[in-house]
Amino acid sequence: MAKQKKAPRPKAVTPKGFRDYFGVEVTQRTEMLRTIAEVYHQYGFDALESSAVETVEALGKFLPDVDRPNEGVFAWQDEDDAWMALRYDLTAPLARVYAQHRNDLPTPYRRYAMGPVWRNEKPGPGRYRQFYQCDADTVGAPSVAADAEICAMLSDTLERVGIPHGDYLVRVNNRKVLNGVLETMGLDDDTQRDAVLRTIDKFDKVGESGVRELLGKGRLDASGAYIDGVGLSDDQAGPVLAFLTSKGADAAKTLANLRDAIGSSAIGAAGVDELETMATLLDAQGYGPDRIDIDPSVVRGLGYYTGPVYEAELTFEILDEKGRKRQFGSVSGGGRYDDLVKRFTGQEVPATGVSIGVDRLLAALREKGRMSEVAQGPVVVTVMDRARMADYQAMVAELRNAGIRAEVYLGNPKNFGNQLKYADKRQSPVAVIEGGDEKDAGVVQIKDLVLGAKIAENATLEEWKDRPSQYEVPRDQLVSKVREILDSQA
Amino acid sequence: MAKQKKAPRPKAVTPKGFRDYFGVEVTQRTEMLRTIAEVYHQYGFDALESSAVETVEALGKFLPDVDRPNEGVFAWQDEDDAWMALRYDLTAPLARVYAQHRNDLPTPYRRYAMGPVWRNEKPGPGRYRQFYQCDADTVGAPSVAADAEICAMLSDTLERVGIPHGDYLVRVNNRKVLNGVLETMGLDDDTQRDAVLRTIDKFDKVGESGVRELLGKGRLDASGAYIDGVGLSDDQAGPVLAFLTSKGADAAKTLANLRDAIGSSAIGAAGVDELETMATLLDAQGYGPDRIDIDPSVVRGLGYYTGPVYEAELTFEILDEKGRKRQFGSVSGGGRYDDLVKRFTGQEVPATGVSIGVDRLLAALREKGRMSEVAQGPVVVTVMDRARMADYQAMVAELRNAGIRAEVYLGNPKNFGNQLKYADKRQSPVAVIEGGDEKDAGVVQIKDLVLGAKIAENATLEEWKDRPSQYEVPRDQLVSKVREILDSQA
Repeated sequence: MAKQKKAPRPKAVTPKGFRDYFGVEVTQRTEMLRTIAEVYHQYGFDALESSAVETVEALGKFLPDVDRPNEGVFAWQDEDDAWMALRYDLTAPLARVYAQHRNDLPTPYRRYAMGPVWRNEKPGPGRYRQFYQCDADTVGAPSVAADAEICAMLSDTLERVGIPHGDYLVRVNNRKVLNGVLETMGLDDDTQRDAVLRTIDKFDKVGESGVRELLGKGRLDASGAYIDGVGLSDDQAGPVLAFLTSKGADAAKTLANLRDAIGSSAIGAAGVDELETMATLLDAQGYGPDRIDIDPSVVRGLGYYTGPVYEAELTFEILDEKGRKRQFGSVSGGGRYDDLVKRFTGQEVPATGVSIGVDRLLAALREKGRMSEVAQGPVVVTVMDRARMADYQAMVAELRNAGIRAEVYLGNPKNFGNQLKYADKRQSPVAVIEGGDEKDAGVVQIKDLVLGAKIAENATLEEWKDRPSQYEVPRDQLVSKVREILDSQA
Repeated sequence: MAKQKKAPRPKAVTPKGFRDYFGVEVTQRTEMLRTIAEVYHQYGFDALESSAVETVEALGKFLPDVDRPNEGVFAWQDEDDAWMALRYDLTAPLARVYAQHRNDLPTPYRRYAMGPVWRNEKPGPGRYRQFYQCDADTVGAPSVAADAEICAMLSDTLERVGIPHGDYLVRVNNRKVLNGVLETMGLDDDTQRDAVLRTIDKFDKVGESGVRELLGKGRLDASGAYIDGVGLSDDQAGPVLAFLTSKGADAAKTLANLRDAIGSSAIGAAGVDELETMATLLDAQGYGPDRIDIDPSVVRGLGYYTGPVYEAELTFEILDEKGRKRQFGSVSGGGRYDDLVKRFTGQEVPATGVSIGVDRLLAALREKGRMSEVAQGPVVVTVMDRARMADYQAMVAELRNAGIRAEVYLGNPKNFGNQLKYADKRQSPVAVIEGGDEKDAGVVQIKDLVLGAKIAENATLEEWKDRPSQYEVPRDQLVSKVREILDSQA
């Protein structure tokens, strides 16, 4: 028989657009999700974990109009040829779950969900095809008290994970106010309305004068290209600009400005009333405008939501990749949406909810130095005599029983240098050594690796003499000495 | 223009073989994973979260030999036509990650991973296409000290999540001993060896006499069908049976029996030595045979692993679906495997690891009544006057600030009965009521819903008089009274 051709070795690579998370990256995120879940739970929200897989039909936005619905989602056909896909967010699955289980679920239904979602999009720097979302939504509550509650919860959550009062702001706007403005302008033409909505979306980037130009004749953008405008007269553009710039010194002033901007529109008045109610409710709970503020310049998501819109921004400055100061920016957004459940049941079900960008929030805390990027490694018990492994295992058992993270070196113990290199790679704070001499004398050597590294780097001879980084203690003082060193490093 | 045909509504259904998890199902699992992670971390294991998606090439077992690799995994082609799939376990991704990052990772590399995995298999009762795994593995440690460590960690983990000493047993076997047995039997024929391995796998089910028959001429099974045997003589079958039944009164006796069973086989002797070393190491750390036991009747996975094999069983009895007593059985298994990383790099890398079935463990704790199946709902503040929502929100804020889970009713408040029905559905312990009269008098009504339900069910008139379930207290005693009631319910 001919020798079979050897199959080539598979490549060990993460699929394009995906990544692996190691050590503290994982545990810090887990810890943050836990803290957020605690706040959500305190507010009466219940956990929901839907499956990662949904029918493409249920996801809706990506209905297959071609052979394969590979636009935006990862999809495949099951054994019955039905298209399945990985969820792209946590809101579409909530709508499906609520429609499916609505007779068993309480109304209103407050639920939170956290987990990965998947997007079949072109990956880029910092843009992955799998990332975490962390959502809280209230389904079936028509009153803006539900929106106010979520804003309060968002504020609490940010403070609980370590963003102090003053370093963030939850800003609130309302789509109905914008609808009132459009009504006042007399824009009946859908195409023109859409153009105005798209222009408003650029307010963040181009500011008041930019929006004015874009609503009018057009604008020369930074790259030198001329962008055609919507073609409104200055008079027509007025209410939009009044709306976007209506932020006053306090909520009362802002609300008064908004009432001016919407003219006699009923829907606009309803929107301003909603903002006023939210401000009153939040004030009664102690959330002043230094934490949650009415701010009509919030435009993100204004096209998607149907009522209140809210966004949490971190207001402290960081240095961007080019060394320029800039605000950290948005870490969370949400608002009220009405028709997600209707797709399934035909009945309109009011819903409002928020999504927190956990990874951005982690990045912010790291940026501010409020989260260590370095894990505390385990105490490493080295192996001087392979035959006495049982002794070393007993040591780590003692340390662990005292609540100290510890492990025995399990590689080839022949080269002691490798063991210390290993301890270094593991970011171990302490190494324990017990050779034959120590064993006979009933002692152990305990090496303070953090101090050792410091001394090696920059200590004077005096300091080196004064503060030795290695100690010999009786075997029965192993735990107490290690504890003492760990405490001194803290 | 003709009226556009309305698209049919999508169906709100969980995809076949998947399910949704609600409330305590989610939080209890999260809590258990957290506890397990704490133990793993204490032992020096680092977290790893690889992506849910892998190249089919890296997953290996399911290489596409047809157009679509839909056997066992959920797979699709990416934009470059390469096949991608959802991971089916956490071991294959570990091998890929270790091969990819081996120069940056410490050696040995202790890692833990927890998360969902996906199987494209026929779903059945209690068998889902997405479920959790919770693994710990040590890569790059050839010594059985690594296996002993994982057994000790498994024992600690079970006790920490609430399975007490005496209700579980970690049983250890070794594939090399079986290889020694096969060598002694002189089975050179691979087909016959495989047949013997398959027969051994049935030891759990058919016992000693069953295996004896199946190794010989054959056996009439419970359904009346005759199963052909391997065709060995009684003499040839002897060592296998001696191996399977070699469990003695203590480890020394078991090891002596095994040495008899393997005759002069060198590989067999190595296996028995490994078991002896593990027993010694575990004993030195205080893990006696009442927690971790050498037991050659453990056969699960013996065909897959290359050295030590271990399994954790819960030893208490439960009633099965037919009301018969049976042992709860296995909740975890693992062992040593050598060639997973080799697929990628060509170099053999020793590895050993364990996987805990979190959902089975949760089921066991619920079965034993050690885990409440009922969540503590939030305190519900009812809405008697829609215009005073701010007052009610202020109440829940006070309760939450005191650490009490609380919410205001956000549905339509018109029908008060609906509010109490809602509180019931939410499993609320306490309802708070403040109507106009109460507001004027500066008091609130606080209803003990747990006591109320008890009284409604079976109290005598006397008891009902003695223990009213509704209290009127001054508004400023809201928090203290609610706290008092919650404490009395605990």
